[in-house]
Amino acid sequence: MRRLQTYLPILQWARSYDRAAFSDDAIAAVIVTIMLIPQSLAYALLAGMPPEAGLYASIVPIILYAVFGTSRALAVGPVAVVSLMTAAALGQVAQQGTAGYAAAALTLAALSGAILVALGLLRLGFLANFLSHPVIAGFIAASGLLIAVSQLPHILGIRGGGDTLFEMLHGLATHLPETNPITLVIGVSVTGFLFWTRRGLKPLLRRLGLGPRAADIAAKAGPVAAVLVSTLAVRVLGLDARGVAVVGDVPQSLPPLTFPDLSPALLGQLFLPALLISVIGFVESISVAQTLAAKKRERVSPDQELIGLGAANLGAAFTGGFPVTGGFSRSVVNFDAGARTPAAGAFTALGLAIAALALTPAIHFLPKATLAATIIVAVLSLVDLSILRRAWTYSKADFLAVAATILVTLGFGVERGVSSGVAVSILLYLLRTSRPHIAEVGRIPGSEHFRNIHRHSVETDPGIVSLRVDESLYFANARYLETYVLDRVAGDPDVRHVILQCSAVNEIDMSALESLEAINTRLAESGTRLHLSEVKGPVMDRLKRAHFLDALTGQVFLSQHEAVAALAPSSARPPRPVPAAV
Amino acid sequence: MRRLQTYLPILQWARSYDRAAFSDDAIAAVIVTIMLIPQSLAYALLAGMPPEAGLYASIVPIILYAVFGTSRALAVGPVAVVSLMTAAALGQVAQQGTAGYAAAALTLAALSGAILVALGLLRLGFLANFLSHPVIAGFIAASGLLIAVSQLPHILGIRGGGDTLFEMLHGLATHLPETNPITLVIGVSVTGFLFWTRRGLKPLLRRLGLGPRAADIAAKAGPVAAVLVSTLAVRVLGLDARGVAVVGDVPQSLPPLTFPDLSPALLGQLFLPALLISVIGFVESISVAQTLAAKKRERVSPDQELIGLGAANLGAAFTGGFPVTGGFSRSVVNFDAGARTPAAGAFTALGLAIAALALTPAIHFLPKATLAATIIVAVLSLVDLSILRRAWTYSKADFLAVAATILVTLGFGVERGVSSGVAVSILLYLLRTSRPHIAEVGRIPGSEHFRNIHRHSVETDPGIVSLRVDESLYFANARYLETYVLDRVAGDPDVRHVILQCSAVNEIDMSALESLEAINTRLAESGTRLHLSEVKGPVMDRLKRAHFLDALTGQVFLSQHEAVAALAPSSARPPRPVPAAV
Repeated sequence: MRRLQTYLPILQWARSYDRAAFSDDAIAAVIVTIMLIPQSLAYALLAGMPPEAGLYASIVPIILYAVFGTSRALAVGPVAVVSLMTAAALGQVAQQGTAGYAAAALTLAALSGAILVALGLLRLGFLANFLSHPVIAGFIAASGLLIAVSQLPHILGIRGGGDTLFEMLHGLATHLPETNPITLVIGVSVTGFLFWTRRGLKPLLRRLGLGPRAADIAAKAGPVAAVLVSTLAVRVLGLDARGVAVVGDVPQSLPPLTFPDLSPALLGQLFLPALLISVIGFVESISVAQTLAAKKRERVSPDQELIGLGAANLGAAFTGGFPVTGGFSRSVVNFDAGARTPAAGAFTALGLAIAALALTPAIHFLPKATLAATIIVAVLSLVDLSILRRAWTYSKADFLAVAATILVTLGFGVERGVSSGVAVSILLYLLRTSRPHIAEVGRIPGSEHFRNIHRHSVETDPGIVSLRVDESLYFANARYLETYVLDRVAGDPDVRHVILQCSAVNEIDMSALESLEAINTRLAESGTRLHLSEVKGPVMDRLKRAHFLDALTGQVFLSQHEAVAALAPSSARPPRPVPAAV
Repeated sequence: MRRLQTYLPILQWARSYDRAAFSDDAIAAVIVTIMLIPQSLAYALLAGMPPEAGLYASIVPIILYAVFGTSRALAVGPVAVVSLMTAAALGQVAQQGTAGYAAAALTLAALSGAILVALGLLRLGFLANFLSHPVIAGFIAASGLLIAVSQLPHILGIRGGGDTLFEMLHGLATHLPETNPITLVIGVSVTGFLFWTRRGLKPLLRRLGLGPRAADIAAKAGPVAAVLVSTLAVRVLGLDARGVAVVGDVPQSLPPLTFPDLSPALLGQLFLPALLISVIGFVESISVAQTLAAKKRERVSPDQELIGLGAANLGAAFTGGFPVTGGFSRSVVNFDAGARTPAAGAFTALGLAIAALALTPAIHFLPKATLAATIIVAVLSLVDLSILRRAWTYSKADFLAVAATILVTLGFGVERGVSSGVAVSILLYLLRTSRPHIAEVGRIPGSEHFRNIHRHSVETDPGIVSLRVDESLYFANARYLETYVLDRVAGDPDVRHVILQCSAVNEIDMSALESLEAINTRLAESGTRLHLSEVKGPVMDRLKRAHFLDALTGQVFLSQHEAVAALAPSSARPPRPVPAAV
């Protein structure tokens, strides 16, 4: 039973579901539904899909997430970055607006769902950790910029396209003379209005006496007002006949049952994009879910979240949708509106189903420029390039990873952007650990402490070299240690003993073991003995198992002090002065 | 001047060159020359090149290495593994035996030389460290097996080919009925003879009263004897007319001046193979050079070695050769024969040049089976699969990396083999560090020591959770820490303080900083404060620079003991019994 509850979290909360929870959930659902209608249509536009696909992608996926997901507030559906990545992936296999494009979207959602479920069942959620925070921040910022630019053609009423900033700007410059002035007026007014509802409306409502929560929610309804007013304007003034692009006929229907094309060729082409979409979607979703859960001292299980999101994507694949994930803005609204359980999501799905059945005829005259404005205003809040400055201040390695992510995303598209970010950050980490800090140490007079001879005035013995290694030893730094020790000794014919102080060595892998063996052998060839001191228990176990200690020319000492005392009982060199320039 | 000496090591040793050194070097050169003649011809055969290319690849490259290299004993020329990789690389762009094949070999050598010089000038020699010892061992063993199997067709007198074990065995099985019995007799006898000279001849010579060094060198001359006898046999008995494949006409000439084809298409196709050949060749060479240098307390400079090997390969490219590196067996012979300076190499080059001019007509009747036998006996000593057992005993991660390298090398060829080994070992290292050990600690009664609550009987306070993190914090484990801390606190409503003991944290990257900020914020949302203790100096500097300490809800304490004393002055929980099963 407990095992079943792990995989079906609904069994945990559904049993204690009562009238109070129902009431809270229902209110939250109404608010989220109103917000989701324009957002779903807009992200469908961004993904290059027909508008109804945005609604469909918000209905069954929400319900499936409610059954399998662990977050009580997460709202699942189309989100900006994943929609952009969807457009980039599908653009490689089909032309926007064709049947093949929408079909490929189903395949992409199915693949993404399967990947997420597989990662969840294999408990591989931690793989997403290799996307570092700065890389994610850079990627989201660059994607936001790309998304905003990708919507400018809709605001201008011209053709657009392209996966990179250069392609997009080139398209804009080419088609600029074809700008439709009426579309431009609609686009600019709606954009201005939406910015104002974000910045100016809430304080205004507060001054008019509204409570803070009500003012907040009213301000979030801005997009709905913009949709209503601009649709009415087009309808009444007949602007669609004067070149204003509108959403057009939308089928009045519940989500259809669809079957994704699972031909091996298409799966092969879409696998890598699906993997990236899954990982990025998961990272975005889990961040939101954890933030909201922590506020109520609840937990989300990352591996179960993968299964929940995977189920949602499989749902999207079979009901005419496209890839979905847990969205930031909708989840926060859901949480703020008081949602207590995933049932709020199910009620939202109900609301959207009603919208898909009843409201779709009203959408016909909705201008695409309005949707584009909704997207631009939403994503510009994501474009926070201050990550560059913060990374520069904090660490140059992090800065390089962010800069690579942003530049490659803008210059070569989203898929290569996120891959480059991961590659650069892993590479820099490996480089850092491949050159560990090694300090030559000596005894601080009158103590048992050993410190860096370049920083402290210490006693050393001409026949003994003591080296402290400040990193676990593994293949990438094993040869560095080998070269370091042998070079140190090669230049000094007096040396008879080398002591490696291993207090900071948590692990010695097989390469490092072989390097130690090589050091031992080569030192022996020149008449020098190798000793170890302060070796940790588990490391010592391994060294014993590998019979290294049998071959060791010297001894293993419990402490560095014991080692030096045993090897040079009387001949300590007087304290050296600290060198002037270090 | 010193800078010039760094790049031209010859300036260091040439000035003190005297008659004694000359005499030692000349004797070593004679011995190495005799050994190199059959070896060069054999490795040319392995690389799919005409036999004279093996001689050419041992002349100018040796001289250039003597000028630019830092090892005094390293002997440069064609070696087994690099020759096999050369054959695999060239097989992808041309057919063995065609003019295009030999031309591509020049391009490959030129590319490899350019890559090595570039790595040396950029001081990137340490990149080779990412090839772990077990991966190299596995790769060499698997390559040795592949090489041995690749020579069986020559022993049998049938056609062969293929880059993977399966392809080779398939070819053997297909052509087995075409076996030439006389070739087989030659091949098997020479192989048996060579094994005997390795195992049985040396003890025999010692019993006959020869000194150990002389016996060793005489035993090494086995291949020369085999070449002489089998060539004579073919000549006298006219076996070439009865189907025994012989080396055939070899031009009687010094190395020709050749110009590699540098067309972008060919460079593009050969770049990755050239990179792998360069890295593998460098690793093999530097291991030998360091081993020999250490015996005399000399040093080799890895970056200058790259330049020396690069110059040698460029030399091979312009004199009708193919990729070369420092070989293990020839270098050891050179060293044991008493070579004192790189001049020994130059004299060897002179010897081989004389051989190329004078001895080539005599090579006509040399059976290919004899060369194949030479190769098989040489490489079988490389096939040491005990690395699998040793890795299994020592560490499962190392075992996985070795096993992947061996299986992929045998099953998919040398290039994929070595790439897989590197990828697997990096991946496993990242996985290990991505789940750091985090211990919940409590105070050992009557002391200031804090230890793992699951291993020791310690005092804890119900309002305080103390966690010790045993790894530097970076992106791959940042979210793990976040989840760990938040999960720990989510289940325990009593907790008011979380203390992170940072004694083992050498670095906190930006992702980890953001995770700490998230932990701080989320704990604050549930009324819990975050404290740090025992933070190292450099880490503290960074935290200050990032203004993390301003936001921190708790304090930073010098020691864990101070922290607990300040936060829970009186309410210590009595010692808990150690749990039975841990």
